[in-house]
Amino acid sequence: MTRQQLFENITKKESFLCIGLDTDIQKIPEHLLTEKDPIFEFNKQIIDATHKYAVAYKPNTAFYEAQGAKGWESLQKTLEYIPKDIFTIADAKRADIGNTSAMYARAFFENMNFDSVTVAPYMGSDSVKPFLGFDNKWVIILAATSNPGGSDFQHLTVDGDKFYEKVIKTSQEWGSEDSIMYVVGATRPEALKEIRKIIPNHFLLIPGVGAQGGDLKTVCENGLNKECGLLINSSRGIIYADGGQHFAKEAVREAEKIQAEMAKILKGL
Amino acid sequence: MTRQQLFENITKKESFLCIGLDTDIQKIPEHLLTEKDPIFEFNKQIIDATHKYAVAYKPNTAFYEAQGAKGWESLQKTLEYIPKDIFTIADAKRADIGNTSAMYARAFFENMNFDSVTVAPYMGSDSVKPFLGFDNKWVIILAATSNPGGSDFQHLTVDGDKFYEKVIKTSQEWGSEDSIMYVVGATRPEALKEIRKIIPNHFLLIPGVGAQGGDLKTVCENGLNKECGLLINSSRGIIYADGGQHFAKEAVREAEKIQAEMAKILKGL
Repeated sequence: MTRQQLFENITKKESFLCIGLDTDIQKIPEHLLTEKDPIFEFNKQIIDATHKYAVAYKPNTAFYEAQGAKGWESLQKTLEYIPKDIFTIADAKRADIGNTSAMYARAFFENMNFDSVTVAPYMGSDSVKPFLGFDNKWVIILAATSNPGGSDFQHLTVDGDKFYEKVIKTSQEWGSEDSIMYVVGATRPEALKEIRKIIPNHFLLIPGVGAQGGDLKTVCENGLNKECGLLINSSRGIIYADGGQHFAKEAVREAEKIQAEMAKILKGL
Repeated sequence: MTRQQLFENITKKESFLCIGLDTDIQKIPEHLLTEKDPIFEFNKQIIDATHKYAVAYKPNTAFYEAQGAKGWESLQKTLEYIPKDIFTIADAKRADIGNTSAMYARAFFENMNFDSVTVAPYMGSDSVKPFLGFDNKWVIILAATSNPGGSDFQHLTVDGDKFYEKVIKTSQEWGSEDSIMYVVGATRPEALKEIRKIIPNHFLLIPGVGAQGGDLKTVCENGLNKECGLLINSSRGIIYADGGQHFAKEAVREAEKIQAEMAKILKGL
């Protein structure tokens, strides 16, 4: 998917909501556990219920790997089930030496046809570049993550920059705003503001709204650009809004609530 | 496996060789492609041939994921096939927010019973700690990696330290020399020397000998400690020593050659 197509979808749906499919077998409603593939069945019902309100889905690979080969099948089926006009993110946080990153790129872009994959920057250029050789595919590089440990290294000062700023500046040489996005946690509004000065046009993937405590309005004040430029993710807040029979109905209620807020914000662009 | 058990195995086998099972379907001998599970069949024959000379095996998950659910099955079968006295490393370079890292830990330590998993430090403490709550399991944190891009960030200066030194110093608070190892590339002998001043006792996993150009003797001069303290990995140099019918025979020849050098080095301890 191109940046233009993504922005068109945002405009059409009046939403920049990404729904995180962090589907944990230990948290899904009990009545689904008798299904042949409970994880896929859960995702299917969540997608059916929420796809009108979302422009992106983001399965986190950890939750599928925790189920072994069977989980990998659930992931593949989920990806195939997502409507084709919705941006898909393999939240995998991969990266390795060049020939190995090329294997990960094959896994997520060729075998599974995800639109994008999240990548950890620690190993540098040749660990990220193999993901950049695919038309209309995206690399989403971790910059300032939402978790408490994000401060351990990312906020240290290097050559007068925060480390996450250094990551952003250095990675500008690897690709463009048409191939790279960055992860900036909703719990880091001050970082978001500074990051927008460096990359005014890039899309940012913003986790941490909802369960992790980030606030939608604050994020938009600091991060929105003229083509939106934000994909705001909520995982647990939507998919586990209700733990029982009504999980899909409650998920759609949560998604709709966020989308309504987003529609208002987009009117101001 | 405990540190003591690992050192006993090293002493017994006169080897600190780790063999990387980076098994690429596009590189294995053609005659295996008619097998039901060519990747497992390749690994099985490599393990049969080389296990006398190795104290550790390190499958890199990328090569298995590139085959989807089927690859994940090959990985599980491979792990089960490795003799129980051999240390196993899931070279996965994972890490995510706390609840998600806990899922990865479940995948590699509970569902698959690996002895250890490699972890990227960028997301900090709560992304690594979930891997540390398992008896006799190990986290292997990326410090100074062997690839060219390793210099992009890891060798920058932060508070008077190289960034990889900062990672090592900070992570001392998360676990001990009985639960944490570090990755230091064989292509970084100067880093290795400095790292040994900070952590004289920890085990280090050293990739980059062989195909990537690192040298065994130089590594040992800079990194060996009184309980060996090194696991030196070779992947492509061993498993693809021959691309045809004789791949296992040539792999054992390469492994034996490295082990013989290691035996000599260990005598000097």
